[in-house]
Order: sequence, then structure tokens, then C-alpha cells
Amino acid sequence: MDTHPAVAAGGKTQALAKRYGDALPAAGPWNEHIALLLSHRSVRGYLPDAVPTGTLETLIAAASSAATSSNLQTWSVVTVTDPEVRAKLAKIANNQKHIEECPLFLVWLADLSRLERLGEAEGVTLEGLPYLETFLVAAIDAALAAQNAVVAAEAIGLSTVYIGALRNRPAEVAELLGLPPGVMGVFGLCVGYAKPQAAAEVKPRLPQSLVLHHDRYGVPAAQENTERAAYDATLEAFSERNGMGKVDWSKRAINRTEKLEAMSGRHILRETLNRMGFPLK
Amino acid sequence: MDTHPAVAAGGKTQALAKRYGDALPAAGPWNEHIALLLSHRSVRGYLPDAVPTGTLETLIAAASSAATSSNLQTWSVVTVTDPEVRAKLAKIANNQKHIEECPLFLVWLADLSRLERLGEAEGVTLEGLPYLETFLVAAIDAALAAQNAVVAAEAIGLSTVYIGALRNRPAEVAELLGLPPGVMGVFGLCVGYAKPQAAAEVKPRLPQSLVLHHDRYGVPAAQENTERAAYDATLEAFSERNGMGKVDWSKRAINRTEKLEAMSGRHILRETLNRMGFPLK
Repeated sequence: MDTHPAVAAGGKTQALAKRYGDALPAAGPWNEHIALLLSHRSVRGYLPDAVPTGTLETLIAAASSAATSSNLQTWSVVTVTDPEVRAKLAKIANNQKHIEECPLFLVWLADLSRLERLGEAEGVTLEGLPYLETFLVAAIDAALAAQNAVVAAEAIGLSTVYIGALRNRPAEVAELLGLPPGVMGVFGLCVGYAKPQAAAEVKPRLPQSLVLHHDRYGVPAAQENTERAAYDATLEAFSERNGMGKVDWSKRAINRTEKLEAMSGRHILRETLNRMGFPLK
Repeated sequence: MDTHPAVAAGGKTQALAKRYGDALPAAGPWNEHIALLLSHRSVRGYLPDAVPTGTLETLIAAASSAATSSNLQTWSVVTVTDPEVRAKLAKIANNQKHIEECPLFLVWLADLSRLERLGEAEGVTLEGLPYLETFLVAAIDAALAAQNAVVAAEAIGLSTVYIGALRNRPAEVAELLGLPPGVMGVFGLCVGYAKPQAAAEVKPRLPQSLVLHHDRYGVPAAQENTERAAYDATLEAFSERNGMGKVDWSKRAINRTEKLEAMSGRHILRETLNRMGFPLK
């Protein structure tokens, strides 16, 4: 097997340092599969080059191989090639131009309609479908599938970025893609070759000490605040180095969640889903 | 790099045939990373052998490397070692003994409480938190993170199974793990070495023709029914070969969704989440 370029550049300690800054976790098992996972970064600029023939089918085979709750397979996916539809989706997603630019764009669906049709074909009413739990199963199924597709894409040298902003106006997405009731576009995914200038560094994350708990949840408040301040410094330096302004994590997180306006319409998701055939009982 | 045992056994066509039976998709790019993804199977029986030192930290590093919406990182994880807590979690999950048996058990959390604490520390109210959208972001963040951990585990020869049945009684899970308001155990994950008799074949999935749509959603009803019948035959044969009874996909899917009782209490998830600090506006 050829060594993947994203993996060849550095070893385990270097990969962990890129992901965690100075807050290095204990050293554990390591190989090229894990190095590939650690090398992930989201990319928001794509070259026009087409992806290799059969890439779509390979990504879907990876997606189908993820676990799915009770093997119900309550997800589907639409690949969007129509430039007009791409443009409309980009507009819904606050003008994210990479949706138009990337050679492969996928919309991942929470899909309860396949089971609806199964019930109709077999003459039974499926009482479990209208519940929040079942919608959640479908959204999680879609997420597990999509993440496998992301890993597969990166494994062949492609880059990706999730587009959660399709949830700004899910009913419009449904109309554009002809989704029946009980189907929702949970997020989009751009796939393609990164523009060199769009390939930023690996983004540092919160230290494991704040995310991983042993037997009981909780970190002492003083520790959480100290370690958050250290992460803020790490992310601020990362942001400045990568041309994203000198803004730390705490400020960014507050900017995203303080005011309803920052949700770009997603505060009415529940009502919208109700109208789209998800009663969310 | 050593060839992974799960990957060495067969090539691309064989891997696709295991995943799709006769409904082979077009051949696309392939390498050992993709072969590893295709080789996934859920395992419900574990040897007592401990996982290698540092495995937990490696899995969490993989999890942290997954995309997260706006870098909010609205997930956390608890590793459960206490045998009494394991036993109680197994009971909640309809007596799944592998929860007690596996050397490493993780509960993946949708966690909005970290942002709540951030807002308190900075003296701001985060208006976006009480919405269904924000809960969904947290659940998806947890799913993307967990799936990366699954890939990392399988990459070092470990097996896994997700435990969605922790959602049978999420408030009890929260109490057992000391979760504050705004934190929910979305699912569990068993990690360990498979008992030889528990390592079943790769489970076939629905054909790509029923899951992957081009520009607009939809498969003609006659085609969907014919291809579903073919998948039913494939899955029935798989189930019989693997000691799971001669039951096809349609019957299993109906059994799981026809009656509320099959939800094991999950039909009240919305009310329970409301009480756990998720208003789901």
C-alpha cells in the first residue's frame, strides 16, 4: 500500500500535537488508519478537477458499511449535479460558494419514508415512526454513514466539508430535491480536491481532560476554566496563523449561540419538521 | 505498514459482494483504508482480554478529529469501569450482557452543558441552546466523533457495537453517570476483542440503487419492491447462516417499528429530554 500523503508527513506525537497543542494525551496504539483520521481538516475551496470514476459508489459502499440502528437503514443520500440546484443550495447555506465549486456534492438524508412505503406495501401501520426517537435514529444513521464516506474520501486524497447550514431552510431543500414526507436533508457534504490555499492546518480541539470523563461526568470548575483558557490561546493562535482573525474559541462559541439571529432560521426547525412529515411525538 | 487481518482476506470485489450480495455497485477507487471500512461488523460477545494501554486516548483523539458543527464540540464521553454501573446500564439496554463483558465501554454524550457553563463564566445568556436544532447538532457531533472512534478501534483489531438501547431510559443513565442538565447519553459503545463465535459475517445492506439518488429523490415503486425482495432473500440467507433465524429484512424492520412496545420506552423520549434540560423548542 502506498503511504497516504496526509499521513506520511509526520508521526504520532506530531499528529497529536497538531490536534491538541500542548495538551498531549497519553500515547496509545497507532497506525496509518489512525494517522489518516487525525489528519482531518474541513476544506472550503475546491479545484475543478473531477473525482476518479467510481468514487461516488466507493463512498456510498463505505457509508453503507457503518452501523445502523437495528439494521433499519433509515438514511439515504442525493448526489446533486444540476448547477441551478447547487446554486440554490449554496444560497440557502448562507452563500457557501464551495457547494457550487466542488466536483461532488451529497445531501445526506434522515429517511423514514422507505419504512413508510414498506408498511404500505405490506399493509401494516408502523406505530413507531412518528416519534422524536425515530427521527433521532434516522439523523444518527445518516451521520454515521456520512462519516464513513468522509474517511473513505480522505483515504483517496480528497477533501470534504459538512454543510449543516442546509438546515437553515429544510423545506426548500426538500422541494429542490423532491423529498417526500418523512425525509429531511440533515446536512450536505462537499467532496473534491482542495485548492492549495484552502488546505489549512489541522484545527486544534478541546483537551481530552475536558471531553473524556471517567465513570462520572464532571471536571472541577477551576480546572475547566483554566484549561479552556489554554485552549482559547491555542485556537486564537491557530486562527491568526490561518487567516481567520485573532479570535479565540470562547468568543466564537458565544458568537454562534448567543443570539437567535446567528441560527439563520434554524430556531423554527421543530415546526418545519412537523410540516415535513416528522410529528416528533 | 502491516496488512490488517480484516483487510488481507479479500479484495475489492469480494468486499463489495459481502456488503451487497449480488447487487454489486460500480467499481471505484480502493485501498486498505476503504477495505477496513467495508469489513465492519457489529460484535455482541467479547473476550475478557484488556485493550492495549493508551487505546482509550487514541480512540478519543480519533473522535476529536471528526468534524464538529462550527467547532462547538457539543459532545463528551464517559468511560464506564464500575461493574455495578455496567450491570445497571446492561439492564437498561434490555439485558445486553456484552455491556458488562467488554473491556472498554463508552457512553457518548450530546453535551450542551459545556456551553451553558461557558455562558455563565462569561456572563452571557446563550439564546440558541434550548432549541431542537442545537440538540440535533449535539447528537450529530456525538455520532461523528463516535464513528471515528469505531474506525480507529477496528484499525487496531478491536471490535465494537453501538448500544442505542441506552435511550430506553436516558434519565436513569444520566443519574448513573452524574450527567448535569443539558447532557444526554445518545448511545453506548462496547469495545474489545471479539469472541471467535461472536464474529459473524459482514451484514449485507440495501443496494445502492435504493439508497443513492441522483439529483432528485425517488425510485419507481415497482423497482423498489423488486429490489427490496431481492435484499430480503439475501438477508434471510445471511440470518440463517449466522444463527439468527430465517427472517428477512422487511419482517425485521416491521417487527422493530410496528408496535410501540418494541420501542422499550423510547416513545417518551421528548418528554424525558424536556425534563433533562433540553427544551427542544
